[in-house]
Amino acid sequence: MTSHTEQSAVTVLGLGPMGRALAGAFLDAGLRTTVWNRTPGRDRELVERGAVSAPSAEEAVAASGLTVICVVNYDAVDAVVRRDTVAAALKGRTLVNLTADTPDRARDTAAWAAEHGIGYLDGAIMTPTPTIGTPAAVFLHSGPKELYLEHQPVLDALGGTHTHLGEDAGRAAAYDIALLDIFWTAMAGYAHALAMARAEGITARELAPFAKGIGAILPPLFDQLADDVDGGTFSGEGNPITSAASSVAHVVHASESHGIDASVMRAVDDLVRRTIDQGHGTDGFIRITDALNPR
Amino acid sequence: MTSHTEQSAVTVLGLGPMGRALAGAFLDAGLRTTVWNRTPGRDRELVERGAVSAPSAEEAVAASGLTVICVVNYDAVDAVVRRDTVAAALKGRTLVNLTADTPDRARDTAAWAAEHGIGYLDGAIMTPTPTIGTPAAVFLHSGPKELYLEHQPVLDALGGTHTHLGEDAGRAAAYDIALLDIFWTAMAGYAHALAMARAEGITARELAPFAKGIGAILPPLFDQLADDVDGGTFSGEGNPITSAASSVAHVVHASESHGIDASVMRAVDDLVRRTIDQGHGTDGFIRITDALNPR
Repeated sequence: MTSHTEQSAVTVLGLGPMGRALAGAFLDAGLRTTVWNRTPGRDRELVERGAVSAPSAEEAVAASGLTVICVVNYDAVDAVVRRDTVAAALKGRTLVNLTADTPDRARDTAAWAAEHGIGYLDGAIMTPTPTIGTPAAVFLHSGPKELYLEHQPVLDALGGTHTHLGEDAGRAAAYDIALLDIFWTAMAGYAHALAMARAEGITARELAPFAKGIGAILPPLFDQLADDVDGGTFSGEGNPITSAASSVAHVVHASESHGIDASVMRAVDDLVRRTIDQGHGTDGFIRITDALNPR
Repeated sequence: MTSHTEQSAVTVLGLGPMGRALAGAFLDAGLRTTVWNRTPGRDRELVERGAVSAPSAEEAVAASGLTVICVVNYDAVDAVVRRDTVAAALKGRTLVNLTADTPDRARDTAAWAAEHGIGYLDGAIMTPTPTIGTPAAVFLHSGPKELYLEHQPVLDALGGTHTHLGEDAGRAAAYDIALLDIFWTAMAGYAHALAMARAEGITARELAPFAKGIGAILPPLFDQLADDVDGGTFSGEGNPITSAASSVAHVVHASESHGIDASVMRAVDDLVRRTIDQGHGTDGFIRITDALNPR
């Protein structure tokens, strides 16, 4: 296998819904794509589309200069790549780990890769499976910039926007965790709102148009509050946290009066009270950032 | 005072930031606007712009066929209007209560108003103070439809969109509470994400563009999930709650490894685990709506 072939070839380890989408995008881009999955049988459709099915992870890795792995978490990554035969096959090649986990696990994997002479980039996929290969996909990358630039043409075949966030291998995971935090918390808020609405005889379909309106005001607000938080200024601007406290208390009260679990909002209520008790009642709600993590 | 004068006149009780914005919008629309606030001195700017300052709540109410009240909560509403003199002055007139509180308080106030021969509409303002008088304002109304239609021309002077949600006086408050639930939960998620980012050396300004991206995917998702929840179908569609559980666990772990309070996400984690334990692991995350509020 020539060096040129290796560079235009890519291996995908892990063929869950996301792994299959990644392999599909590589195939669509005309790359020689080798695939492998721990549980066999997941590669049938990909092979029909031209993928090469490797009988083992080490053979899959040996087929390409670049291997992309996307599995459930880093325990699963370790189970696949932290084996002598696979590590040996990866030596001198590059592993791009698009599995989601915590920043410390990403840094630990980068250290292991360095010890074994493996080029390592750690990334995160911020958008759902159907976006892969489309302009809507969002990928975050971290690790050696030079290594990233070398493999950028292949990674670009996945579509969407790719951002290299820095040399620290943990950086993509740190962004990922923070963004998932926003996403799942907001989703929990929506689920709770739908439960409250249902108890009041309001269907999800009736609430949805207004819920979308709330969703639409978040992005500009996120932007506006960023400077407040970085600067340590938290001006209430006519909307002090004491007023948020009143809203939050109404939600808790209405929820519990219907027998609906209010644990998420109770936790928010605690943070709000703590912030007010610390003497920040005239600051804006976003001041709870400091209550969460004193600088 | 002729009936015609009364119809084109409006009284605003409560001159906090929102009350002042409402009175200002009425003045801008050329309505004869009478104002009153429990603590004096808040009406100076409004009087300069042409408002009539009333010496008491009963005199303020007597000056107009329609009175709008917007104060901190319904305890404050009661302290202003549930007095013999004010109730007597309101008799045969209409009170529009734009104060935020719970649906049960709204219904209780409607019952009190009916007992006293007062026309009563209960509303909610879904957008911040600066939107009042602009197309961006969003008002929700509930109570007798005929009464609403009678006062709609005056209420329209507040700008934006007005929706009459139904005859039940608690309906606007029920929507309001559900929407505030989404808003404050999402804001708590953003505050927590910023605390996590800071611990990883990522500024709010660096995270904000990506946070906005997360915010932008919420409205279409809210829409899409509404039918799932109404129909009691919660298909995971390649994104089962077990995968959300993994994300949520990563957030809790990363948060606590930095000494950052993870109470909000721990509450989400509990709901997710409970839903999975009930045998719904292949359903989507939104299934937690049922765990919150069994039908």
